[in-house]
Amino acid sequence: MATKLDGHDRDEGLTKLKASGWTHDADRDAVSKSFSFKNFVDAFGFMTRAAIHAEKMNHHPEWSNVYKTVDVTLTTHDVDGLSELDLELAKKFDELA
Amino acid sequence: MATKLDGHDRDEGLTKLKASGWTHDADRDAVSKSFSFKNFVDAFGFMTRAAIHAEKMNHHPEWSNVYKTVDVTLTTHDVDGLSELDLELAKKFDELA
Repeated sequence: MATKLDGHDRDEGLTKLKASGWTHDADRDAVSKSFSFKNFVDAFGFMTRAAIHAEKMNHHPEWSNVYKTVDVTLTTHDVDGLSELDLELAKKFDELA
Repeated sequence: MATKLDGHDRDEGLTKLKASGWTHDADRDAVSKSFSFKNFVDAFGFMTRAAIHAEKMNHHPEWSNVYKTVDVTLTTHDVDGLSELDLELAKKFDELA
């Protein structure tokens, strides 16, 4: 089960995400990042690799794609905000991009 | 090169799309449809098949995915509105869903 992040873990997690280009939406307690690629094939290739990891984690992004751009938002519906799963998936997205 | 739809072709094309659940945004001259699947794997599987067709056509959707839902918007930037490519890609999306 996911647990809502708080205290030091939350501060540290958010600081790391912001340092790698994620922005925090306080209203939704979600993080977002826009990834840009060379073309559609590269953008969708990234989505395909990320989709497999998301499914393995059973934690899925909200995301959109327009040609070579992929916009990703992560939050955990079960806890109505950010959980450890979001930090883990965000890190994976950064690695794959 | 894509040509902006007009006259009879446009009327007929839009009528068919609306009959299969697409909605027309007159401001953007774009069509949109929300596709729903059993789960994330089915939703992303649909996107993967559609992505390959889009790339082959060199005509790409604007689309977003949240778990089992895929929202698609089609328009042709080169002509600032709907072209034959959008009708063709919309039909392909319907076939694949």
